[in-house]
Amino acid sequence: MRVLVTGATGFIGRRCVALLAGRGADVHGVTCGTGSQPVRGREAAAFGGGRVENPSHITWHSADLHHPAQRERLIADVAPTHLLHLAWYVEPKLFWHSPENFRWVESTAGLMRAFARAGARAVLAGTSDEYDPAGGILSEDRTPAKPSSIYGACKRAVHMMASAIARQSGVTLAWGRLFAAYGPGEPSSKLVSKCAADLLQRRSVHIPAATLVRDYVFVDDAAALLVALLESDVEGAMNVGSGTPTTIAEVAHGVADVVGGHQLIMADLRGDEPPVIVADMSRARTLLRWSPQVSLADGIRRTVDAVREPERVLSH
Amino acid sequence: MRVLVTGATGFIGRRCVALLAGRGADVHGVTCGTGSQPVRGREAAAFGGGRVENPSHITWHSADLHHPAQRERLIADVAPTHLLHLAWYVEPKLFWHSPENFRWVESTAGLMRAFARAGARAVLAGTSDEYDPAGGILSEDRTPAKPSSIYGACKRAVHMMASAIARQSGVTLAWGRLFAAYGPGEPSSKLVSKCAADLLQRRSVHIPAATLVRDYVFVDDAAALLVALLESDVEGAMNVGSGTPTTIAEVAHGVADVVGGHQLIMADLRGDEPPVIVADMSRARTLLRWSPQVSLADGIRRTVDAVREPERVLSH
Repeated sequence: MRVLVTGATGFIGRRCVALLAGRGADVHGVTCGTGSQPVRGREAAAFGGGRVENPSHITWHSADLHHPAQRERLIADVAPTHLLHLAWYVEPKLFWHSPENFRWVESTAGLMRAFARAGARAVLAGTSDEYDPAGGILSEDRTPAKPSSIYGACKRAVHMMASAIARQSGVTLAWGRLFAAYGPGEPSSKLVSKCAADLLQRRSVHIPAATLVRDYVFVDDAAALLVALLESDVEGAMNVGSGTPTTIAEVAHGVADVVGGHQLIMADLRGDEPPVIVADMSRARTLLRWSPQVSLADGIRRTVDAVREPERVLSH
Repeated sequence: MRVLVTGATGFIGRRCVALLAGRGADVHGVTCGTGSQPVRGREAAAFGGGRVENPSHITWHSADLHHPAQRERLIADVAPTHLLHLAWYVEPKLFWHSPENFRWVESTAGLMRAFARAGARAVLAGTSDEYDPAGGILSEDRTPAKPSSIYGACKRAVHMMASAIARQSGVTLAWGRLFAAYGPGEPSSKLVSKCAADLLQRRSVHIPAATLVRDYVFVDDAAALLVALLESDVEGAMNVGSGTPTTIAEVAHGVADVVGGHQLIMADLRGDEPPVIVADMSRARTLLRWSPQVSLADGIRRTVDAVREPERVLSH
């Protein structure tokens, strides 16, 4: 298969690129930019790190996906059979309510339409925020969609539009709803990395709403699920989480288990956010025989290692 | 209230404009165009026909809603407290799967964002095609959304996005899901007008899938419901239908009741379309005390009159 991966240098995207290349796919990664000059060879290998068996299978393209002509040319140049669309506006905190979300609705629909003319299989990234946050354990089939943010509403809207485009053109489409992916190379404002940085410097860490239950999925497990989904013919929404309820306090103390400093964690119990946001992972288990391979303790340890020695992490 | 009505010269829009003006609202209608010169006075009165009590309450604006700067200027010029957004791509038959639907997603989200900065209340037009067509009697709360066309998917997507924008800004939003509106001035390809034109000329009429059950709502009743919705503070989706199951054959023979020619109706029983698409109207009845005022026989008679004497219909 010839796969076009957008957001290919991102936190999850670069793992997907490496996995796909390792499995022998003809991988074409897109990076943001104003030109559309492919980047090949040694530069490509740098993105995949040591895991890429055959770096020659990765071709890099620079394209601005918001630009209709560049999208069209990208699809014409690559002629992908498969599309893994992960690109979106992801600036920490700002992404929830940014108008950039509207731009990505438009650009994603445009990309999907261009791809659907000749492509066969698409997997697009959604979010747990599409669900009714009152839902608790969130099921693709049973939990109603009721996004609480502009981000969630726009992702949900794109799912609607992309599904209609896919149906019209005969493309099969799956929609991976990402929960809280964490791991080496995550933004420094994220929970594990923030705790690790503070505790390593013996600074106190304030954890608001420590009792909230969330779903932390190790980034390699999330990437493996997305790749398995792309290789399957499963359609519709699919949660991309761990399925394991974990409190925010548990994660913070998990970091302290590695670097010490339990007494520096100031856990606050307030917070009016939804108490439980956890993925029901039965669909992934049943249809893809997927299960998470990295325990929370192991995932935290690897993420902390990356905070300690950032130069050893796959470079962004 | 100062209402901005888009699609204001359309089949339903021009009735809404007339009703709102008759109720004393400060109505601003938008027509397509490239300039943004308001049209006032006598020209305005022509759109409302004889029903407008006070034509000075209607101001016309010409603006291309696909053009961001024109949208912004329109909102700045009018400073509406209320928005009734009916404009969309509605070319008969083509609208189901046209890429124009994607443009309207973008433009509607943009219009809604501009309006929400200072507006208070918005009603936008959705469609019965947002529902799972297997649903039968379609309820706003109970029937799942499962659009079968690009049109339905794009409308559904806009509802998601507009709801999120409204929630962020404190605008209250209702979403009117239109069923099969019919009446004087409808496109000549529509069922009643097509039957009338053929039967008046004693041509045979072929009715494919005559046993399909649909929801025909007289256009004045639909407009009255949209206006009542705009004047209320009801939020969420609201069906805009009649609530009366009617077969396609029944409508065709209703036309023959007026103009004769029952024997010219060739009813075919095939068709793989959804057997029943009918609105559950309990929400409109309960929350708005709305009920349809025009019977099917009466509505058909008025529509047939318009086919006979098109010059007497409100001019487009």
